[in-house]
Amino acid sequence: EILPYSASRAQLVAEKIRPALAAGQIVLCDRFFDSTYAYQGYGHGLDLGVLRTITEFATEDLKPDLTLYLEVDPEEGLKRRLRDQSAEWNRLDEMTIAFHQRVHEGYAALIKAEPDRWVVIDGMQSQSQVQHIIRETVHQHMG
Amino acid sequence: EILPYSASRAQLVAEKIRPALAAGQIVLCDRFFDSTYAYQGYGHGLDLGVLRTITEFATEDLKPDLTLYLEVDPEEGLKRRLRDQSAEWNRLDEMTIAFHQRVHEGYAALIKAEPDRWVVIDGMQSQSQVQHIIRETVHQHMG
Repeated sequence: EILPYSASRAQLVAEKIRPALAAGQIVLCDRFFDSTYAYQGYGHGLDLGVLRTITEFATEDLKPDLTLYLEVDPEEGLKRRLRDQSAEWNRLDEMTIAFHQRVHEGYAALIKAEPDRWVVIDGMQSQSQVQHIIRETVHQHMG
Repeated sequence: EILPYSASRAQLVAEKIRPALAAGQIVLCDRFFDSTYAYQGYGHGLDLGVLRTITEFATEDLKPDLTLYLEVDPEEGLKRRLRDQSAEWNRLDEMTIAFHQRVHEGYAALIKAEPDRWVVIDGMQSQSQVQHIIRETVHQHMG
């Protein structure tokens, strides 16, 4: 699955993201390559070096300036998924709690490796609090 | 294009080639990963190390036992393509002679790096001579 995912990402970067950046626009993505490292690398145990080579090839080394990480612990995350009737249940939700723990630890390692790019937001707060912090963070970053 | 190609190759290896080999069958491919190295690597100038990482990931390191290379020089190859009205003209045929020279040199380098896997057959001979050598080579290899 990593190869079609990466093909799709390469097309997205080449056809949408790079032209938008070149036109001076701000690009906002709901997930980018960090999810690949966290889920396929740390979660499913694929070789991180191989994932990085494929990803950097696909994106031509494009990196986000700022990455917002809304953190909840894996058990709370799964509880929320179960409560939310409107959300589509997917393949990754079926994985064991151990899988989600590995993904969570993976994100922690990614953040530790590049602390300047990440802002970690406590997702256990209320929606309005989370929203407020996101706004503040983005404004500050763009200032 | 290398990523969808490799995704396709990964699926072919996992769903067709490995099960066939496991069942004791002989698998014959018209082109495999060497073409990727020759055309995308040597021809188009993509990084060979990256191509190898992606390819070995896609195939899980599966390699042919025997690779037959029917060699003609690039100018003769293009002449034959122009003469053959039944063959579909494709994107690679449109490339310059310099491109096909680089591909040709690429194959030479690949053969030099793994001489035991390759048998080079002079494609300037008649069809029946080429066919005879292929039969002999395959019989000998399987014996």
